[in-house]
Amino acid sequence: MSRTIITLSDILGMDKQPRTNLINSLPGIRAANLIGTINEAGITNLAIFNSVVHIGANPPLMGFIMRPVSVERHTYEYLKQTGCFTINHVHEGIYRQAHQTSARYAISEFEATGLTPEYTPAIKAPYVKESLVKIGLTLEEEIPVKANGTILMIGKVQEIILEQDLVNESNILQLGNSGSIGAGGLETYYRLSKIEELPYAKP
Amino acid sequence: MSRTIITLSDILGMDKQPRTNLINSLPGIRAANLIGTINEAGITNLAIFNSVVHIGANPPLMGFIMRPVSVERHTYEYLKQTGCFTINHVHEGIYRQAHQTSARYAISEFEATGLTPEYTPAIKAPYVKESLVKIGLTLEEEIPVKANGTILMIGKVQEIILEQDLVNESNILQLGNSGSIGAGGLETYYRLSKIEELPYAKP
Repeated sequence: MSRTIITLSDILGMDKQPRTNLINSLPGIRAANLIGTINEAGITNLAIFNSVVHIGANPPLMGFIMRPVSVERHTYEYLKQTGCFTINHVHEGIYRQAHQTSARYAISEFEATGLTPEYTPAIKAPYVKESLVKIGLTLEEEIPVKANGTILMIGKVQEIILEQDLVNESNILQLGNSGSIGAGGLETYYRLSKIEELPYAKP
Repeated sequence: MSRTIITLSDILGMDKQPRTNLINSLPGIRAANLIGTINEAGITNLAIFNSVVHIGANPPLMGFIMRPVSVERHTYEYLKQTGCFTINHVHEGIYRQAHQTSARYAISEFEATGLTPEYTPAIKAPYVKESLVKIGLTLEEEIPVKANGTILMIGKVQEIILEQDLVNESNILQLGNSGSIGAGGLETYYRLSKIEELPYAKP
């Protein structure tokens, strides 16, 4: 078996694109989620993120990493204006449209990609109608990372909308049933199939 | 199609275990990674995490979420003592052992689970020999989350060890080839199969 060792100085010496590709794919699989926002003027934005993480269950908190706001970032700007956002799972039927939201459009990504905004009374920001797992959140905390100017954005879950009976008897979301997919790096998408649900580990 | 709406007050009214299961599985699929650490006395620790995220490519930074250190957390304590840690992808051949590291042992999880520690000159912390993708990092930043006492730990990549030729011509890690798996919530494991690698999105 061949072994490759890539050092920090190798990484720093790489061209930008190969370095971005390598480092973005290093964490392994990550959920592909669409984050929906709206500004004070009612203009919507939709963007794909692969950095949504669990922060805590009680109270229910979820986070995601915003890239530095040194350039215009609608998600950040709109979220700050209205204080809320939605997280929508990407499934196999919409991943090409979801990926396309990462292009730089002058119009709303809903309009550009054909995905459908949907609203509930609880959250001002738009959900993605086509998604089967949708979460509405209010901004709870914004934490700057000194090392490179990224920001950990944390939201409190206000409501969860499941378009089918997608949780099992233990209340665990069944990602095979929701068709939720994963992203490896910025451009590669993966289908999921359950191997096993293991019991809580004891010595 | 049936629709379920779960509100914040529903979530807060749940028993602890169903709430933990639901909220932990909400983000969608996440990478299963083993984090290896060592303390000043040379005692090792190994723990499974599903919160590893990409922070930045230049410099190469990765983060993970530590639960509040209100109780003993060896990963945190050892990492602070020696300033380094390793991230090791979990593949299908070791996921049961990886899951078992979440049990509370009095001995090192390497010894308890039979996974093999492995060392390089660059990083004091142990790698997992059986893993095919291993990353050695030094602690760069530690960011407390006010909302619930969790901590975003950020490390700088010092070296990447790939046990096979696992990146494609664009330098994207091929998670199908590394056998890397995903976790949905705390106890369910998923196999990955590539759907497609899409081009960089343009309007």
